[in-house]
Amino acid sequence: MEIIVQPREMQQRSEQNRCQGIVITFVPTMGYLHEGHLSLMREARKRGDVLVISIFVNPTQFGPGEDYAQYPRDMERDLALVQDVGVDICFTPSANEMYPDGFQTSVEVHHVTENLCEASRPGHFRGVTTVVAKLFNIVKPHLAFFGQKDYQQLIAIQRMAEDLNMDIEVIGLTTVREADGLAMSSRNSYLSPAHRTLAPGLYRSLVKGKELFARGERNAATILNAVRGMIEKETAAAIDYVKLCDARTIQDIDTVTGDAVIAVAARLGTTRLIDNIILREE
Amino acid sequence: MEIIVQPREMQQRSEQNRCQGIVITFVPTMGYLHEGHLSLMREARKRGDVLVISIFVNPTQFGPGEDYAQYPRDMERDLALVQDVGVDICFTPSANEMYPDGFQTSVEVHHVTENLCEASRPGHFRGVTTVVAKLFNIVKPHLAFFGQKDYQQLIAIQRMAEDLNMDIEVIGLTTVREADGLAMSSRNSYLSPAHRTLAPGLYRSLVKGKELFARGERNAATILNAVRGMIEKETAAAIDYVKLCDARTIQDIDTVTGDAVIAVAARLGTTRLIDNIILREE
Repeated sequence: MEIIVQPREMQQRSEQNRCQGIVITFVPTMGYLHEGHLSLMREARKRGDVLVISIFVNPTQFGPGEDYAQYPRDMERDLALVQDVGVDICFTPSANEMYPDGFQTSVEVHHVTENLCEASRPGHFRGVTTVVAKLFNIVKPHLAFFGQKDYQQLIAIQRMAEDLNMDIEVIGLTTVREADGLAMSSRNSYLSPAHRTLAPGLYRSLVKGKELFARGERNAATILNAVRGMIEKETAAAIDYVKLCDARTIQDIDTVTGDAVIAVAARLGTTRLIDNIILREE
Repeated sequence: MEIIVQPREMQQRSEQNRCQGIVITFVPTMGYLHEGHLSLMREARKRGDVLVISIFVNPTQFGPGEDYAQYPRDMERDLALVQDVGVDICFTPSANEMYPDGFQTSVEVHHVTENLCEASRPGHFRGVTTVVAKLFNIVKPHLAFFGQKDYQQLIAIQRMAEDLNMDIEVIGLTTVREADGLAMSSRNSYLSPAHRTLAPGLYRSLVKGKELFARGERNAATILNAVRGMIEKETAAAIDYVKLCDARTIQDIDTVTGDAVIAVAARLGTTRLIDNIILREE
């Protein structure tokens, strides 16, 4: 496996690869890798010839007072993990190389980022879509892979790629979970043992909502009341939001008539966790 | 010469060309071509193997009440003109293909677009940078050419390409002028004969400012007063702005210490004209 630090070097390598007919697959990450990331890489490994990943904790998607400085980092461990998966190139730029003096451009996807996480993390998605646009232009992949745990992010990136005519297929893969159902996340490492025990209640509550849907319930308020009640009872988490949205537009809905998503954000102690579950007619 | 209407077809063609080692040059236009456009194309013709131009009157860079509907169009004449220049592919998408239902993404370059034209054309540059990002992704050029007449636009696009790591060299070429000095512009066709006679006074006033600079004047107010006074006297135009800015940041300056630009926007009747001149130490 090769480690490339300079954006220009990464870009030239990818241009050469594309010109040789090589299919480039790409998994962008912020490091501190877990099985969720590795499962994306395994799928990306199968779908192309050269697998590029990036490890870059992107400062512009963290708000003031958020955990940019504390975000867990362990490059040595990450590099060992991805070697086993068969990563060809690991791109690890510095923040100075990604955002040199005078940097002043942003990419924004508007409607699908207005709901859910935007309220408590203003500007977060602008940071995400901007850095992903940069990474896409540097790595020039044919296919890029993202986890469905960050569902709103996935939809925003798919929308950006389509709207800006990026020649990239953006693929979302199923959330990987711990045995007890907790969605894998680098931020799980923040959880105290007590909160770690309570955290799987988030997913159990989403499953409860999906069961109501499966039994024919279509009223969003009814489903959300059940989910919210169970989260409050089982986890005592401070709920940021529990919402039922159209799966494509991420707008709130009153009645489920097509593909939908129940999305939750909640704090256990100081740790903000997000999760979601898709509601789809069988 | 080939005419391509579908973005996806244009993109696939360019991808194939790149993979064969072909150098793609690109001149995006809104049509109603004049010698300014043609000079960009002639230079682009020399600098690469396949010359692509686009003709697309982009609705999102016109504000409410601006001249989108009236903007001059003459595709037949344009196609005859570019054939002579040796254009290989003319890309002419429809507005529906560029902005399908659900479109919601924008690219913004912030600081360099805050001054000059932004005040009277809010959102104009966001429309420009967004459509150019799309066109760049569709046409995949190695080199792209823009006229210096739209100086602020040129700087914004260069900044965008650099900030977003687009693998494209954005080249600005000298403004082409009529024999009497008027900068060529598709909007010159709006001018009444009387206003057409007055219009070259804009450029003569800029030249006057540059002469002051050449004779050692470095105070912006002194230079601008002379330029403004001459515009008022010679053209009777309604001045939108006359400003002296840093050539790279497009911020107003009090004293000329490095490369700078005198930029003017003014209305003759209902026709808004812009022009500029660069001040550079010999």
